[in-house]
Amino acid sequence: MSASDINGILRVMARWEPDAAGRLQEAAVDLYAERGYEQTTVAEIAARAGLTERTYFRHFADKREVLFHGSQQLQEAMEAAVEAAPADAAPLDAIAYGLRRIGPFFDERRPHSLRRHGIIRSSRELQEREMMKRGSLVIALTAVLERRGVEPAVAALAAESGISVFHLAYERWVADDGNRGYAEHVDETLASLRALAAVG
Amino acid sequence: MSASDINGILRVMARWEPDAAGRLQEAAVDLYAERGYEQTTVAEIAARAGLTERTYFRHFADKREVLFHGSQQLQEAMEAAVEAAPADAAPLDAIAYGLRRIGPFFDERRPHSLRRHGIIRSSRELQEREMMKRGSLVIALTAVLERRGVEPAVAALAAESGISVFHLAYERWVADDGNRGYAEHVDETLASLRALAAVG
Repeated sequence: MSASDINGILRVMARWEPDAAGRLQEAAVDLYAERGYEQTTVAEIAARAGLTERTYFRHFADKREVLFHGSQQLQEAMEAAVEAAPADAAPLDAIAYGLRRIGPFFDERRPHSLRRHGIIRSSRELQEREMMKRGSLVIALTAVLERRGVEPAVAALAAESGISVFHLAYERWVADDGNRGYAEHVDETLASLRALAAVG
Repeated sequence: MSASDINGILRVMARWEPDAAGRLQEAAVDLYAERGYEQTTVAEIAARAGLTERTYFRHFADKREVLFHGSQQLQEAMEAAVEAAPADAAPLDAIAYGLRRIGPFFDERRPHSLRRHGIIRSSRELQEREMMKRGSLVIALTAVLERRGVEPAVAALAAESGISVFHLAYERWVADDGNRGYAEHVDETLASLRALAAVG
């Protein structure tokens, strides 16, 4: 996949697409934030989006999944970006390259991301689902690194560490009320990891 | 908690305790391995253990939880061991110290651990539960490191990385048909992490 293909994907992802699934996600984030996740029903989400419950279930299996709309695309964009990293990049650098490329996806919808983050933290069920998405990212990036010629045991470790950086950079970006972008937090978190691993 | 307290906990954990919960877990691992996880019912597990379904549900909330019997104790032993690491140990070394201490828990019940591992890999539902246990370990070890005076952002990163080492050392230990113990795999995986983070 070429760099311009990836840019195309990232552009589409960053642009708000008011399709049915997107409207349902917006309605769900609104309602979960207003009334709480437990207290909101699928019927209410569908009504707020001006759609039927039937349409809801055509897009999402349950009340949790609506919050993860777009995560498959995000994963694909990340895979493509790691794939496209310079051929001589070391494993962690290839992943960092991929993480920096998805920065605009978070930066351009920061208010939405912050509300979504608060909702996920409010529910163990949602945290479980998020952990699973992380597991699936680790598996996907391990495979990408192996295709880049990285030995399997090293690829698994680099993917695990890379997804820790992905996650903790996100936490720092959420907590940061300055205006530093996600990519900057990736660089800082990776530098912390290098410092941490160098001691001992 | 002193070193001898920890040794006490580890001794109790390593010794097979044929109490009701332990018998239920043994029966579940047997049946899941023989017939498959999906195909086995709680009634069958209870019957195999010579107990009632009612007793089963006094110990475990569902079909998944029985496979994680002991994981709370394992977490507590790990917390205590990291707590007891030398005061001047760097964050990752403190965690590695804790991980090495739980080695005997795995080594002494290797056949059981291998069967359990195969069962968990066979079911997405069980992998989900395992991911959650990992998340809870990360939270617990972050808190321990903070109590050791490590700055929160660094503690979170060290705990994430330490649990990646915990997990990948376990995978290597499972795959290793030689007789190297879990603690040795911890050392090797940590060395890989240091090498990985040093490049770039």
